[in-house]
Amino acid sequence: MADARTREMKRILVVGLACLDIINTVDRYPREDEDTRALSQRWQKGGNAANTAVVLTQTLDTSCELLCSLNTGIEGQYVKEDLQKRGVLIENCPVNKNCGFPTSCVLINSVCGSRTIIHARNNLPELELTDFDKLDLSLYSWIHFEGRRNVDEIIKMIKKVRDFGREQKLQIKISVEFEKKRPEFEPLFKVEADVIFIGKDFAQFSGFTTPEETVNGLSTQVHSTSVLICPWGERGAVARGCDKEICSSPAYPPERVVDTLGAGDTFIAGVIFCLNRGRLIKDAIQFGCQLAGKKCGIQGFDGLKVTQSDSDIRS
Amino acid sequence: MADARTREMKRILVVGLACLDIINTVDRYPREDEDTRALSQRWQKGGNAANTAVVLTQTLDTSCELLCSLNTGIEGQYVKEDLQKRGVLIENCPVNKNCGFPTSCVLINSVCGSRTIIHARNNLPELELTDFDKLDLSLYSWIHFEGRRNVDEIIKMIKKVRDFGREQKLQIKISVEFEKKRPEFEPLFKVEADVIFIGKDFAQFSGFTTPEETVNGLSTQVHSTSVLICPWGERGAVARGCDKEICSSPAYPPERVVDTLGAGDTFIAGVIFCLNRGRLIKDAIQFGCQLAGKKCGIQGFDGLKVTQSDSDIRS
Repeated sequence: MADARTREMKRILVVGLACLDIINTVDRYPREDEDTRALSQRWQKGGNAANTAVVLTQTLDTSCELLCSLNTGIEGQYVKEDLQKRGVLIENCPVNKNCGFPTSCVLINSVCGSRTIIHARNNLPELELTDFDKLDLSLYSWIHFEGRRNVDEIIKMIKKVRDFGREQKLQIKISVEFEKKRPEFEPLFKVEADVIFIGKDFAQFSGFTTPEETVNGLSTQVHSTSVLICPWGERGAVARGCDKEICSSPAYPPERVVDTLGAGDTFIAGVIFCLNRGRLIKDAIQFGCQLAGKKCGIQGFDGLKVTQSDSDIRS
Repeated sequence: MADARTREMKRILVVGLACLDIINTVDRYPREDEDTRALSQRWQKGGNAANTAVVLTQTLDTSCELLCSLNTGIEGQYVKEDLQKRGVLIENCPVNKNCGFPTSCVLINSVCGSRTIIHARNNLPELELTDFDKLDLSLYSWIHFEGRRNVDEIIKMIKKVRDFGREQKLQIKISVEFEKKRPEFEPLFKVEADVIFIGKDFAQFSGFTTPEETVNGLSTQVHSTSVLICPWGERGAVARGCDKEICSSPAYPPERVVDTLGAGDTFIAGVIFCLNRGRLIKDAIQFGCQLAGKKCGIQGFDGLKVTQSDSDIRS
């Protein structure tokens, strides 16, 4: 318990993408070549890592730092201010000059909550080990990596965390998210991670049809100590511990689904939050599903407050 | 001829909307709820009036002023700089504080050139007569109005131009564009305009199935001296003079259609350019169709150069 308290006082670090989301809420998905009006439009920071960091900070009152590339352009500055306003620590983010910024145009269908994303990477440089070298690793109890194209650099970062932990006798937990299947992810899959999140897209592209199949099918491909967790939207989530035990949680859909954008990132935030406090995997994925379900019932992240029943898990 | 030369030395004024277009080029139209990558993404000033002004200035070397609402936010500043860079005069544009800026997310399907537009007005104030009062009307030979929701204010502006022209014995030509049918447009339809442009959307919504039907069907509804012009994409354009004579032009499609965004605005720029120089209506709509066709063959407006054969009409 003393260890859990110490961990709570440290930061959670999230490493990955921040982008600009231009979110259009529509009352039906537009036909091709149509010229249509959105019900509303808002700009919001987006990107898996940034969303997870915001939920950890804003909803779960956790000290959370985000390491992501920013730029000096107006989009990067907008995202920077948005993150700061929400209390996410971004003091170590590299700020790039003379380059674009990843931007997504998103259509939220307010009738069914579907989110259609058109993303452009533009030419913002990915994070490198040198960006990571600036960090004081003793500050963090948990480091979460969004699996991205900079696989070699992420592997170096994870190795650095492991070496540091062993030297300093510090238990820094590591998690990695794989949202989509890409051939270059192969080596990253085998790293010494405590938790690996497998997205539904990744799972389906690998030929799996259920979350159970996914965690069982992939278990021999990951490091022997990695817990595999697979969230699957309306089917809830399934986890496979390194003891081979399987546990699952149902989904907790809201009465009306209005916005599913970032639901997966919210799930991850909820799970990391619980596991970082030493909770059981089963409880963690249940809390993640509850939080993600709640998120689907509201527009954006701002109204995502934790209620009394959630607090049972938090306490 | 002397009159035409004098007219050429004056400015063309375009009154209407500038917005921010975030243009995603895709290789197919995304399915609902998909998370997809754009081939490329670019920010560009958009809005019918702004597009027409840019083509007049940049492609047709005409001194053109745009009167549109701007704001102090990053989107408005981006659009302002983009317009200035392209040589459009914007010295009289009101700059609003504490409000949003109209922004469109656009998907260009590079295979067929379709442009799907999701537009949000946000809460930028529309132009009012007081904005128009700042202008020195003796500077302009032609004033083009984009038909928008601020119908009462546009009617007052047009009345002011007509009164001024009669007082000063100046022939200031007036054109009005109706892109979409809206009930509030009714009174604007009857103003004393020299040229009225009727969009295909407007025509179809009114129950017309061809441009010929449109100009004939609407001729009794407009002022007796107004020329009606109806561009209709791949079917070219038809005009009906106040002498009831009908003339038409075929479309001039490029070998490969890659981007139809702003083709209608380009047509209008071409027609105004010609009529402002005293050319015949028939020649003007042919030039408009040629210019619009050329635009559909390129991405954006920057490569829209006028070649030797076009110059025959320009000279």
